[in-house]
Amino acid sequence: MSQYRVLIDANDEKGLVHKISTVFYKNDLNILTNSEFVDKDSNKFFMRSVVDGDIELDRLHKSISDAIPNSANIEVIAPKNKNIVIMATKEMHALGDILIRHEAGELEANILAVISNYNDLESLVDRFNIPFVYISHEGLNRAEHEQKIIDYLSTFKDIDYIVLAKYMRILTPGFVERYENKIINIHHSFLPAFIGANPYKQAYDRGVKIIGATSHFVNNNLDEGPIIAQEVIHVNHAYGWRDMQRSGKDVEKVVLSRALKLALEDRIFVFANKTVIF
Amino acid sequence: MSQYRVLIDANDEKGLVHKISTVFYKNDLNILTNSEFVDKDSNKFFMRSVVDGDIELDRLHKSISDAIPNSANIEVIAPKNKNIVIMATKEMHALGDILIRHEAGELEANILAVISNYNDLESLVDRFNIPFVYISHEGLNRAEHEQKIIDYLSTFKDIDYIVLAKYMRILTPGFVERYENKIINIHHSFLPAFIGANPYKQAYDRGVKIIGATSHFVNNNLDEGPIIAQEVIHVNHAYGWRDMQRSGKDVEKVVLSRALKLALEDRIFVFANKTVIF
Amino acid sequence: MSQYRVLIDANDEKGLVHKISTVFYKNDLNILTNSEFVDKDSNKFFMRSVVDGDIELDRLHKSISDAIPNSANIEVIAPKNKNIVIMATKEMHALGDILIRHEAGELEANILAVISNYNDLESLVDRFNIPFVYISHEGLNRAEHEQKIIDYLSTFKDIDYIVLAKYMRILTPGFVERYENKIINIHHSFLPAFIGANPYKQAYDRGVKIIGATSHFVNNNLDEGPIIAQEVIHVNHAYGWRDMQRSGKDVEKVVLSRALKLALEDRIFVFANKTVIF
Amino acid sequence: MSQYRVLIDANDEKGLVHKISTVFYKNDLNILTNSEFVDKDSNKFFMRSVVDGDIELDRLHKSISDAIPNSANIEVIAPKNKNIVIMATKEMHALGDILIRHEAGELEANILAVISNYNDLESLVDRFNIPFVYISHEGLNRAEHEQKIIDYLSTFKDIDYIVLAKYMRILTPGFVERYENKIINIHHSFLPAFIGANPYKQAYDRGVKIIGATSHFVNNNLDEGPIIAQEVIHVNHAYGWRDMQRSGKDVEKVVLSRALKLALEDRIFVFANKTVIF
Repeated sequence: MSQYRVLIDANDEKGLVHKISTVFYKNDLNILTNSEFVDKDSNKFFMRSVVDGDIELDRLHKSISDAIPNSANIEVIAPKNKNIVIMATKEMHALGDILIRHEAGELEANILAVISNYNDLESLVDRFNIPFVYISHEGLNRAEHEQKIIDYLSTFKDIDYIVLAKYMRILTPGFVERYENKIINIHHSFLPAFIGANPYKQAYDRGVKIIGATSHFVNNNLDEGPIIAQEVIHVNHAYGWRDMQRSGKDVEKVVLSRALKLALEDRIFVFANKTVIF
Repeated sequence: MSQYRVLIDANDEKGLVHKISTVFYKNDLNILTNSEFVDKDSNKFFMRSVVDGDIELDRLHKSISDAIPNSANIEVIAPKNKNIVIMATKEMHALGDILIRHEAGELEANILAVISNYNDLESLVDRFNIPFVYISHEGLNRAEHEQKIIDYLSTFKDIDYIVLAKYMRILTPGFVERYENKIINIHHSFLPAFIGANPYKQAYDRGVKIIGATSHFVNNNLDEGPIIAQEVIHVNHAYGWRDMQRSGKDVEKVVLSRALKLALEDRIFVFANKTVIF
Repeated sequence: MSQYRVLIDANDEKGLVHKISTVFYKNDLNILTNSEFVDKDSNKFFMRSVVDGDIELDRLHKSISDAIPNSANIEVIAPKNKNIVIMATKEMHALGDILIRHEAGELEANILAVISNYNDLESLVDRFNIPFVYISHEGLNRAEHEQKIIDYLSTFKDIDYIVLAKYMRILTPGFVERYENKIINIHHSFLPAFIGANPYKQAYDRGVKIIGATSHFVNNNLDEGPIIAQEVIHVNHAYGWRDMQRSGKDVEKVVLSRALKLALEDRIFVFANKTVIF
Repeated sequence: MSQYRVLIDANDEKGLVHKISTVFYKNDLNILTNSEFVDKDSNKFFMRSVVDGDIELDRLHKSISDAIPNSANIEVIAPKNKNIVIMATKEMHALGDILIRHEAGELEANILAVISNYNDLESLVDRFNIPFVYISHEGLNRAEHEQKIIDYLSTFKDIDYIVLAKYMRILTPGFVERYENKIINIHHSFLPAFIGANPYKQAYDRGVKIIGATSHFVNNNLDEGPIIAQEVIHVNHAYGWRDMQRSGKDVEKVVLSRALKLALEDRIFVFANKTVIF
């Protein structure tokens, strides 16, 4: 008996659910959970099913492909730990939360390495028996620095996600394209408010009563990639911007870990710069 | 072209989705939304689909019944305004919120009447051209009072829901049974905390930092029916119990209206003293 | 025995609390609540006290002025209903919420009138025995239309607040200046995200997972006045922009009513395009 | 220049603020923040001020005592790291969150030791160079087990707080009395709902739509001590009780860390089985 996650997106047409569920039925599969969504604007159909039964992965994939041949994206995934690399700079809270969750067995992930442009976090990472890779940007231009990172990343044959756990440098288009929809960032504001540098200072100056954090896939427009998760907390006039920053950390780490968990469990479709999440 | 809401609950077995979606496909129906859930503990399957197409309601019902004959509950509903009666006592906020939503066209409902054991709310209700029925409990025992209410309710041939908008009297088992899973109450606490009288006073005495409200179907155990919706707000030491009561009203009305809306849109299954909500 | 709200803002200096509390003590006043805040950036001191005792308002004001003579703003207010005018367009939810709260006695306010550039809301307002004033903008330029509104407003000798309950027209600088920090608006987004027209459409297009509403005083930069209150709700991919709009109404009305209540209870200081709220 | 936190609770009477602020003024102290509250039911006055200036701690304490001699509790505290001991059992999330915060310098605390009745967490604690003390309860009755813990705790000359980070054993009255208002627990429910064992199972069986966590000081009635902080998250029918438990962990750790922070910053008064928090 094997368990599979089946992810399908396709142009919507009558009978898709019928055809797919017929494949499940003919192959004697149990449907454990099943979620569907049709985006009316674009006529796109999204479906995520978790099934179990006695069938090979490839055979299940082929059966579905045969049933709905037209331009559908079909993924059949046998759940296993995904390979992730974390990039950080100096702040500990987001990275620390992931390390503890990983240690507690909460994440379906192998952490291949933590890369940082500073060495402040080395001592922490070392304790978790995870390789810490210090790649300083000093004296290098952006492209040179990233090339070093890419060289290191290239030593792994398979990276599912790169998690930017408060990595405080902007990535080049080249880097981003290489890992399309694989880089998960945490932005320390309730996007699209306060794009760019020091959002807490911006929020303080604006006198907002709520601050937030946003986790999103990275694309080539700064802080404009598809949003995965957002959360907020209330603040008041007594919060200086450093107080907002301090309180904001608690939201940042929660949101990043939530987004990472959704990704690891294959719950996210990216579509039209948005996400569909089951 | 007609639109239908199809609600099915049944013992789970392989092929249910296949069989049902085959009915939709054979009848050339569009699936607008589709939600499914299997309760593993009890092996129960729940499904709510919204479909449109060119078919009679009875015929669609029969097609589904024929496809899944075993002990399934199948409802096929053509969306239309449901008939509701509101019961209240003296407080205006929950009733007022429903009246305004009704006036604004937000609710799929006809309000047949507002019944109260006091006449404080008569002036308000009158303005909305809704019958206000004053049935005082004075000088009557509980059964006599309820009989008067039942007599009045019996003048309507069809009542879908009775909404207790801060109706401050306990209903007898006889009354409750007569309208099983049709009476929606708002309890002014985060159930199951603070069952019974004056929950805000109880919450204040306990020194809680959050208060809430719970909307639920009424059954014969006070405040123990299936929960439909809950919401909370933060409070602090500066809140006396009357402050909690005042602030609580904002949550009560929101939660009751939310629960009512879910009921009117046929989104609620009741099961094992719980609700499944799509 | 009289109760007063004392509001003081001043440049901060040592001894302010001492001097003010000495005035309270010498005049044998009870302090019911007392809140203070110092904005470090600007060295501004804010204080709101509620006191009761046997003293004339003018005499209390003079005693405080004598004690802290340097450029302080001192307000001593005997609580009473404030005079408000509501401006609306076509949507009922925010206006309706205020009308019901007013009817329930929740607001320290007299509603002098509801002004609208359409007559859709006339029937509702009439039922509450509040003057509905229809001032159409058709065939008028912005200045001409506003002049008609100003002419009407001028018939009242005292207006404390103008509440824009989804009034969908932009006010001119002249109008705004005339009622500085007296116009309370509800913007249907979590400002400063989605400034301007149709924020729900903007939010939908951006694929946010949270939407919100912001109540603020109006100044001459669209949607950029001092923020009084904000609230949010979670949404997901299944929300079209009209669903966001529908759900957003529940947040809008709550936030506007909350801001109005804060204003009516003299809890808001405006300062540096922000608010200090006690 | 020294900074002090001044905490005062006393029977309320006219002139308290005057007398205390006069002390601050005469001693040329800056008031950085100042919070007051009067509990009307019990006529109790609470005040927390942060002041700085050129004065010895003892002298400031004496000056305040002299100014308000009647039965006031006066604490003058020079901020410094407090000594805490953490007790845990097997779960990592709450302990891990505190360890990371401590490592990041977020907590005003020295962690003297982590005590556990199992050794599962030893490896984690060791990495942070904090003593892990394994005191198994096997083969011991409750009193004997606690005596061993007390013996160990007695090796420290000063313990400010004992943090129960999911310590899954009930403490005896004797233990609790010894550390009155010094033991901070996290209960994995929204108290007072679901007191006792396996609250997530209880919550699941009841079909709630919100779950929560409560941090409180421990007293001799199980889960009935003064509440410090509470937080909730929404759940739905798709959550089995283990899903609630998993999701609940994120709330538990946030709430416990928040309560601990409030305690470390001397922001909590305990009074009538409640807390006043500034």
